Amino acid sequence: MPSPAPPEEPRHAPAALHDLVTRIFRRLGSTPEDAALIADMLVWSNLTGREGHGLARVPSYAAMARAGRMDVRAAPSIERALPATLLIDAHLAPGPVAMVRATQWAMERARASGGCFALVKRTTHTGAIGYYALKAAEAGFAALIFGSGKPLMAAHGARVPSLSTSPIALAVPGGAGGPLLLDMATSVVSLGRLRQLAARDADIPEGWALTAEGAPTRRAKEAAIPLPLGGAKGSGLAILFEAMTSVLAGAPVVVPALLGGADAGRGASAMIMVMDVAAFSPPEAFAADVEALRATLKALPRQDGMDAIFLPGERSRARAAQGSAEGLRVPPALMAELEALAQL
Amino acid sequence: MPSPAPPEEPRHAPAALHDLVTRIFRRLGSTPEDAALIADMLVWSNLTGREGHGLARVPSYAAMARAGRMDVRAAPSIERALPATLLIDAHLAPGPVAMVRATQWAMERARASGGCFALVKRTTHTGAIGYYALKAAEAGFAALIFGSGKPLMAAHGARVPSLSTSPIALAVPGGAGGPLLLDMATSVVSLGRLRQLAARDADIPEGWALTAEGAPTRRAKEAAIPLPLGGAKGSGLAILFEAMTSVLAGAPVVVPALLGGADAGRGASAMIMVMDVAAFSPPEAFAADVEALRATLKALPRQDGMDAIFLPGERSRARAAQGSAEGLRVPPALMAELEALAQL
Repeated sequence: MPSPAPPEEPRHAPAALHDLVTRIFRRLGSTPEDAALIADMLVWSNLTGREGHGLARVPSYAAMARAGRMDVRAAPSIERALPATLLIDAHLAPGPVAMVRATQWAMERARASGGCFALVKRTTHTGAIGYYALKAAEAGFAALIFGSGKPLMAAHGARVPSLSTSPIALAVPGGAGGPLLLDMATSVVSLGRLRQLAARDADIPEGWALTAEGAPTRRAKEAAIPLPLGGAKGSGLAILFEAMTSVLAGAPVVVPALLGGADAGRGASAMIMVMDVAAFSPPEAFAADVEALRATLKALPRQDGMDAIFLPGERSRARAAQGSAEGLRVPPALMAELEALAQL
Repeated sequence: MPSPAPPEEPRHAPAALHDLVTRIFRRLGSTPEDAALIADMLVWSNLTGREGHGLARVPSYAAMARAGRMDVRAAPSIERALPATLLIDAHLAPGPVAMVRATQWAMERARASGGCFALVKRTTHTGAIGYYALKAAEAGFAALIFGSGKPLMAAHGARVPSLSTSPIALAVPGGAGGPLLLDMATSVVSLGRLRQLAARDADIPEGWALTAEGAPTRRAKEAAIPLPLGGAKGSGLAILFEAMTSVLAGAPVVVPALLGGADAGRGASAMIMVMDVAAFSPPEAFAADVEALRATLKALPRQDGMDAIFLPGERSRARAAQGSAEGLRVPPALMAELEALAQL
């Protein structure tokens, strides 16, 4: 259920927001196609409740572009290719441009080989990786994507930011109910969520975060360093994701950032794995079995106090449908900033 | 640190245990090669502290073989193949036989294509998937393996066993420090660990397990249904793993088990993803960067009360070295059972 928003946040049609963001990136120098592609990912993030990866990022994207830390004119290129692998250099192109292109190239290869592993290096803010996994599922592929970037989360046992909150997304095509899509961080909670809770001085459970000095805290206001999900489990996933993305691509992110050397700004990276469903099973039979899994799980007897069992992606799809029909709420200060960026 | 074992558990040389298990499977009808391969996985599990996947499984493997639910004579076969995908029918062969063969076939394909997705269906007890991931890493591949099987864990919000505790393993080759290897369940805690805690009537934290009736419990003795790691996160991973393994292979496990139909015993399945490191980076450079990641993370300032920061796989490697040198402790009752099985 969406929480009631304050009355001062008017609703905006997603198409109008898309147009606004497209104009901003056109002004920054993107091609019409790239600008629309960036706007798609950002507006989808707001529609599906991933505000931290949505319109709120536009000002920082613009600042990165102006500072030369993002190149809106860059075209990602294939550096090495085999029938089932691609090493893609994003050349600091905006994350959505690099990731959408890489996912498309991976799917083209997987149509011939059955599957493909596309490794993207030197992208900037990768964006909501669930968006790219969903695109693949909508085209008939099972997808698994994970990423790594700048250290924000403490490694298990460490008192300083030492690993990315490395996200992982998995998606498969479905039938009438649409794809299943899971999109999660390897931290217990995101920095964005901690900031929301800090704004109302909330308490947080033990094990969520450390203070900036590395001490455990139960106050959101003091929380500065998120802790990994399940301790050694989330920490281990983030370590292996860094090894299988940045390190495998020859562009490590975590070590240069921790050692603070001149290479500390080489950006983020991501691994995109896609499998053509048809390489294993008839797609119609697969879709029917996914729907049977969905229906069977939703009908399970529930724990006391649970209203429903939600399948991965179900709530964000409902939210997107509502946002498309009713419009999206955007904080007026952010809207003013976006409008100014479009007119610069 | 290994906890002190009671004096009545004498130590056994791993080679002697390997020989004993090999003889048992020879008697059950395995080929010499298959019997040795099964013994390798089981003894490795004991050596690395994964006792739940080790020698303690032999009596149940033998019972499954005698009941026709495992076929020790079965040879896994490739049902469909593309340059980067394999669909493998295990024909109810023992898990280690199916998984070792599948990993070998996947690596052969990945040497040509860069990477391979090998999907194994109708295996029996899959075993410790970390073992297969480690084998791939030792041969120069980055590996990601996950599995699904019979429902044991509650889906998020459900009060009944509804999903497998679906494991995931990731491994990459390293340098002098050896491969990094993460091997984890998607539940907060394993059923085996709950049983250990129940034996001494321990309390368990909230959120670990439900009773057999589906109520939350803080007593290990009452715990019957493990809960997913991070609620919707672990549950979502287990749902997507079932979709990307059993369902994708056309042999769903969860739905037939929950509906209790005639197909309820079709066994487990697993996805093996391997990438040739050389398809992306020079292997020596990759190994050096993995060692730099290891060294940098281990040297981080630690939280109060933390003695060391461990990298994934580090503790189980130390444990295996100790077990190899000093011998493995095996409960006398289990040893007697194994010796009886070898002489039947």
